[in-house]
Amino acid sequence: MIVANRTVFFVSDGTGITVEAMGHSLLSQFDKIRFTPVRLPFVDTEEKAREAVARINAQGKADGVRPIVFTTLINPRLAEIVHRIDAFCIAYFETFLAPLEVELGVRSSHTVGRSHGGTSDSSYKHRIDAINYTLGHDDGITDRGLEEAEVVLVGVSRCGKTPTSLYLAMQFGVKVANFPLIPEDFERHQLPGCLEKHRGKLFGLTILPERLAQIREERRPKSRYASLDNCRYEVSEAEKMMRREGIRWLDSSTKSIEEIATTVLQTLRA
Amino acid sequence: MIVANRTVFFVSDGTGITVEAMGHSLLSQFDKIRFTPVRLPFVDTEEKAREAVARINAQGKADGVRPIVFTTLINPRLAEIVHRIDAFCIAYFETFLAPLEVELGVRSSHTVGRSHGGTSDSSYKHRIDAINYTLGHDDGITDRGLEEAEVVLVGVSRCGKTPTSLYLAMQFGVKVANFPLIPEDFERHQLPGCLEKHRGKLFGLTILPERLAQIREERRPKSRYASLDNCRYEVSEAEKMMRREGIRWLDSSTKSIEEIATTVLQTLRA
Repeated sequence: MIVANRTVFFVSDGTGITVEAMGHSLLSQFDKIRFTPVRLPFVDTEEKAREAVARINAQGKADGVRPIVFTTLINPRLAEIVHRIDAFCIAYFETFLAPLEVELGVRSSHTVGRSHGGTSDSSYKHRIDAINYTLGHDDGITDRGLEEAEVVLVGVSRCGKTPTSLYLAMQFGVKVANFPLIPEDFERHQLPGCLEKHRGKLFGLTILPERLAQIREERRPKSRYASLDNCRYEVSEAEKMMRREGIRWLDSSTKSIEEIATTVLQTLRA
Repeated sequence: MIVANRTVFFVSDGTGITVEAMGHSLLSQFDKIRFTPVRLPFVDTEEKAREAVARINAQGKADGVRPIVFTTLINPRLAEIVHRIDAFCIAYFETFLAPLEVELGVRSSHTVGRSHGGTSDSSYKHRIDAINYTLGHDDGITDRGLEEAEVVLVGVSRCGKTPTSLYLAMQFGVKVANFPLIPEDFERHQLPGCLEKHRGKLFGLTILPERLAQIREERRPKSRYASLDNCRYEVSEAEKMMRREGIRWLDSSTKSIEEIATTVLQTLRA
C-alpha cells in the first residue's frame, strides 16, 4: 500500500551513477512510498548548480512536499550552492570526506571524475579488453584463446550465461567465455572437449525448467526446443553432468545478474 | 607519491557492488594513499558477520594500522556485530536510514537484496530484454526492429559504439542499436538508408584519429584499415557527415563508457 509520493533528485558533478545506486539501496527499504527519480548529472559549474537548485525548489513547490536529494559533489563551492535547497539532503561526500581526511592524515584532492578511473589508466583499458574478449567468446563461438579467460560459464541454452558474462566483463573487468551444454553433449555424457584443460575456471548456471520454457517460448514459439518436456530433459541432464564433473553451479532463476556475477567470482577466486 | 598503504573492506549483506562503488568514489579523492580493496559480499548470517570481524581485525594486526571499512548492512543485528571491529568504519545505512525514516514518516523494511530489484519485477526483465536487443542490433547486424530502439549510435568502426551500447542496456535498461559509418557511406555522402526514419534517436561517437589507429592496430596490425592516414580520413568524413545531418555527437577518446552513456541519455531525453 502506497502512503505517499516523493520526488528524489540525484545530483552529481560526474555521471551520477554511483549516487543513484546509493540512493536506490536506501530508498528500496521504504516500500510504502512511491519515489519519482530525477537524475541531474554533470553539475560541474556554478551556473548548473544554480539551475539544479531552481529545479529542485520548483519541484518541491509543485509537489507540496520537499524533495529528497542525494548528492555527491566534490567541489565544495558547488556543494555549498546546492545545499541551500529546501530539501531533505543526503550529502555523501560532505558527511564522510572530512572524517576520512582525519583518519588518513591527508587532504583529499577534491577532483571530479575520478570515480570511473578515466580512460587513460590501465584498469579502464582492462575493462574494455574484457568486454571485447567476452563478446568474442560468447556462446561457444570459438575455443581459441580460452587460456586467457578467467571464468568459463557453462549451462543449457538461454539459462543466463550471456548477460552474466557481459556483466562480469563490464563491472569487474573479467574475461569470460561461455559454452552452451547441448543435447549432443548429454548423449556423449561428456563436456565439450575443449573445456577439459580449463576445469578450474568452470562455473555452471542452471535454471528452473518452467522458467526456461517461458524464456525459450518467447524466442521460438511452439518449438520442441521451448517445450517444457525438452527443457526438463536438458536441465536434468546438464545438472547431472555438472554434478558428475564436479563443476560448481547455481540456479539463476531467482538471482539477478549482479548476484550471480558476485557469487561466481567469490567461488572461483576463493 | 604514495605516503601510506591501507586495506579497505567493503562489507555488504548483498553483492557489495554499490558499497564498493561508493567507497571508490570517496577513496579516489586520496591519490597519495595506496588502497588494497577486499570485498566481503553476502554477509547475511551472524556466523558470516563474525567471520568478517575476525578477518578485518586480523588484517589490521598484520597491517599495523586499522583498516578502512565501508558497510551496507541492513539487518541491525548483523550491523551491530560487524561494527564491533577495530577499524575506521563508514556505515552508510546506519548513518542515513534513521533520519530518512523521520523524513518519510515510515519505518524502513530492513530487507536485504532489494537494491538490484530481484528478478521477478518488470524492470529486471526490461534490463535483460534490453541486453538481448542490444546484442542482436550490434554493429549494423540488422535493421529490423529499429523502431524498438531508444538510442541508435553511429560512428566509424572501433570508436566505442559496442561497449557504450552494452553499458546503456545493462545499466539503464535502454535498447540500443549501433551502426558503423563506413567508407561506402562517405562516398555516397549519405547515412545508411535505414537510419533516415530514426533521426530523433541518433547519437554519434567520434574519436581522435591517433587513438583510433592505435586501437585498430591491435586488431589488424599493419593494415590499411589501421593506418593513421585512413583513420584521419574516416574520422574527418564521419564528423562532416554528422555535422551535415545535424546529429549530436561527442568524442569518446577521453571519456569513460559511464560518461558517454550518461551524456547520450541526457542529450536524447532532454
